[in-house]
Amino acid sequence: MPRARRNGVGVGAPGMFSLVMFEIDPAFLATSQPVGDLALSHVRLQSDARFPWIVLIPRRPAARELEDLAPGERDVLMEEILRAGNAVRAVGEALGRPAAKLNVAQLGNVTPQLHVHVIARRPDDAAWPAPVWGVGVAEPYAPAALEAALAAARLTLGL
Amino acid sequence: MPRARRNGVGVGAPGMFSLVMFEIDPAFLATSQPVGDLALSHVRLQSDARFPWIVLIPRRPAARELEDLAPGERDVLMEEILRAGNAVRAVGEALGRPAAKLNVAQLGNVTPQLHVHVIARRPDDAAWPAPVWGVGVAEPYAPAALEAALAAARLTLGL
Repeated sequence: MPRARRNGVGVGAPGMFSLVMFEIDPAFLATSQPVGDLALSHVRLQSDARFPWIVLIPRRPAARELEDLAPGERDVLMEEILRAGNAVRAVGEALGRPAAKLNVAQLGNVTPQLHVHVIARRPDDAAWPAPVWGVGVAEPYAPAALEAALAAARLTLGL
Repeated sequence: MPRARRNGVGVGAPGMFSLVMFEIDPAFLATSQPVGDLALSHVRLQSDARFPWIVLIPRRPAARELEDLAPGERDVLMEEILRAGNAVRAVGEALGRPAAKLNVAQLGNVTPQLHVHVIARRPDDAAWPAPVWGVGVAEPYAPAALEAALAAARLTLGL
């Protein structure tokens, strides 16, 4: 292995190698809580007690569309979407509101960094049967409910 | 092979075998045009000239959520979502409105049969940056535009 290269990252050879850092768009930091990291995606719980709602953010810099992931990564994302579905169901159970339906969406019109919403829905929720985006305003979690929701999500995801 | 069984379908043995037919929910028939069939999904063009918009309906009776598909089928669906993305981009080009962003969603709150929306979006479209559902009313395609849109979708999908 050349002396100037270590773990694929340039060391001591300016300009020959570049390290592209993955940074979460600040828009997510303002609206959600970190749950943890799966193989591909950073996982966040949306800060809105009205809906059990996870956001998956694949840790791939500059990805905006599903096609920006490698084929194998897309299959990993599909599995992580299913796992997130189980996690939002668990959050709903923990909050005493079991889910009736899952909603999954990759939109990105406002925040272009590739991300997937996975949301547990119920006929008595604040937006049903409409999608959740743009409906009313987010309700903050009470501290104990947030703790219970994060714990349920992490347990289900093995995080 | 037993005489009473042919291609997995019961013949002459009432009650022993049942053939589960896949039928498209009539709600889709009223709001979209058939494009054709991919390996897993029936493909339809939404009858709304405001948005290049394809609906993928996996031909699996009783499926409501992604988890109702077998793991291999979920990967096929992911590939068909990407192909549908290329198709709605081609529809946008054919109509002189190239896409800036793709939106992908599996909701099903109103029509529970498993289906995935794939929509080409632009900052000057009728709903941007909001999701398209529930915004205004669908605008019918003019006959020539519908023909061009269907042709572009079929060419891109190899149908």
